[in-house]
Amino acid sequence: MKLFRFGPDGHEHPAVELPDGRRLNVTHFGGDYDETFFATDGPARLAHWLESHADQCPNVPDEVRYGPCVKRPSKIVCVGLNYAKHAAETGATPPTEPILFFKSTTSLCGPNDDVVIPKHSVKTDWEVELAVVIGKRASYVELDDALDYVAGYAVINDYSERAFQLERGGQWDKGKGCDTFAPLGPYLVTKDDVPNPNSLNLWLSLNNERLQDSNTDDMIFDVPTLVSYISQFMTLLPGDVISTGTPSGVGLGLKPPRYLVPGDVVTLGIEGLGHQQQTAVAYN
Amino acid sequence: MKLFRFGPDGHEHPAVELPDGRRLNVTHFGGDYDETFFATDGPARLAHWLESHADQCPNVPDEVRYGPCVKRPSKIVCVGLNYAKHAAETGATPPTEPILFFKSTTSLCGPNDDVVIPKHSVKTDWEVELAVVIGKRASYVELDDALDYVAGYAVINDYSERAFQLERGGQWDKGKGCDTFAPLGPYLVTKDDVPNPNSLNLWLSLNNERLQDSNTDDMIFDVPTLVSYISQFMTLLPGDVISTGTPSGVGLGLKPPRYLVPGDVVTLGIEGLGHQQQTAVAYN
Repeated sequence: MKLFRFGPDGHEHPAVELPDGRRLNVTHFGGDYDETFFATDGPARLAHWLESHADQCPNVPDEVRYGPCVKRPSKIVCVGLNYAKHAAETGATPPTEPILFFKSTTSLCGPNDDVVIPKHSVKTDWEVELAVVIGKRASYVELDDALDYVAGYAVINDYSERAFQLERGGQWDKGKGCDTFAPLGPYLVTKDDVPNPNSLNLWLSLNNERLQDSNTDDMIFDVPTLVSYISQFMTLLPGDVISTGTPSGVGLGLKPPRYLVPGDVVTLGIEGLGHQQQTAVAYN
Repeated sequence: MKLFRFGPDGHEHPAVELPDGRRLNVTHFGGDYDETFFATDGPARLAHWLESHADQCPNVPDEVRYGPCVKRPSKIVCVGLNYAKHAAETGATPPTEPILFFKSTTSLCGPNDDVVIPKHSVKTDWEVELAVVIGKRASYVELDDALDYVAGYAVINDYSERAFQLERGGQWDKGKGCDTFAPLGPYLVTKDDVPNPNSLNLWLSLNNERLQDSNTDDMIFDVPTLVSYISQFMTLLPGDVISTGTPSGVGLGLKPPRYLVPGDVVTLGIEGLGHQQQTAVAYN
C-alpha cells in the first residue's frame, strides 16, 4: 500500500494510492499518519477499512501539493557514510560501526517543496537516501527481529550545509536541520510492497545531470542492522524515521566541489518508492 | 510562576506552585505544557485564569511523582563544552562558537526518576545544566531580541554515556539519547521570575559528595547568544529545550574517571529552579 499526504503545509490530508492507480482521500478513516497511527497498527487497520469504504472516499485531484508522508515524527535518526564510495569521496575511511546523527524534525517538508538555501550558506548539498519508517516501539531489538519494527519505506533527501556541518564546531547536526532540509515522500510504501529494501536502485540528478546512481545493496550496514543498532542507544517510536545514508555523487565529493544556487532543480528517486523534485531558492 | 507536572509517567497533570507555597492542579485550565501551550502565550493565559480560578483548583498532594516540566518538545538542542573549565577537563580547547548536538526526546523523564544505566554501558556520566524553554517560534533571531523567545528555565541533567559518545563513531548523539538521560524539572520557572539567567549557581553531588559547583556566569556563550545562534541553523519551536552545557566536575574529568554504578544517588540543582535526585539502576 502507498500512503501519502496532500494539501497545504500543516493542513495535509491522509490519502492512499491503490494498485489500480486510484488515489483516495482517506480523511474519514480518522487520524493522520503520525505516531498514534503507527502505534495502533494503522496500515493494517486502514487496509481493512478500505475494503468496505474505498468506494465512498473522494478522489485526490491530479494536481496537489504533497506533504511529508509521515506527520512530524519524534525524531529523524541519520546514518553517516553508509556507502563505501561516498565515505571515500568525503575523504573518510569507511566506518566500522554506524555513525549516527539527527536532523531536526523542523526540517521536514513535502517532496516537491522548494529547498531554501539558508542565510549565509555557500555549501548546500544533496543526499538521496532510503528512509525507514518505524512501525512500533523499538528498544534493544535483536537483528533477526528488526524488520518486524518497520512500517515501510520512503525517499528522503538529506540536505546538508557542508560548512555548517564540518567547519563550525565539530558536530554534524548543525548542518543537517535547516528548514526544508528533509523532503520526505511522496509515498510511504508499506513493507509488504517492498520485498527487499536492501536491493533498490536510487538516483539523484541536478539540472538533469545524473550525479548519484547506486543501489541500497551497496550500503555498508543494511536496514535490519541499522534498526537493531540504533535501538541499542535510544528507543525508536512508531513513526520515527531512519535516514540510511547516501551513495557517492554529492556536491562535496565532486572535483571541484559543487553546491546549490538559486534556480537549481534537484530530482531524485528510489525504485518503487516514487520520486521528488525540489527547486533551490534563496532565503528571504 | 513555577509550572510543574505530576502523576504517573505519560499521564501527568499540569500544576503550578504559587509564591505563597500553594501547589495547585490546573488540569481544568485545559491543555498540558506542550507546544500548543507555549505557542498560545500559555504562561500569561494561565496566570490570568488563576486570578479567578485558583480557589477552585484542587491542591497537589505532598508526595507525588514529578514528570518532565515540559511535555515532549520537538527537540532538545544541547550545547557542548560551554564552560571553559569543563572543556579543559575533557581535554578539549574551548570552542570559538557553540558546539551543538541533540538529545533524543525519548530520553526525557521526571526529575526524580531512576536513571537507567544502559545495557553494555560502563561510562554513564552526569552533567547538571541550565535548560532554556522556548516560548515562541524562533528563526534567525537577533541577539538583542533573543530573550523575547524564551518562556522560562529549568534544571536538566544531560546524562552522557562517554563510550557511546566518544568511542563509537565520532558523533556525540549516540551517547546522549538513552532512555532516562534527560531528567527535566521539577519546575519550569517563567522568565519573569528569573531576573538574570546568566548568574545562577548550579551544583551536582554524587552520594553527597559535591562534584560540580559553578555559576552560569561561567558560560562561554550566554543564554541570548545561544538562542540567537541556534536559530541561525534551525527553527526553534515553542516548548523546545536548549540544554546550555555543563560546568567542570563530570566523571570523565575526574582522575581517575568515575562513572555511575547501580545504587549511586545523584542530586543536583540550580538557584531558584529547584533540585533533582536520581538513583542509578541497571537496565533489566
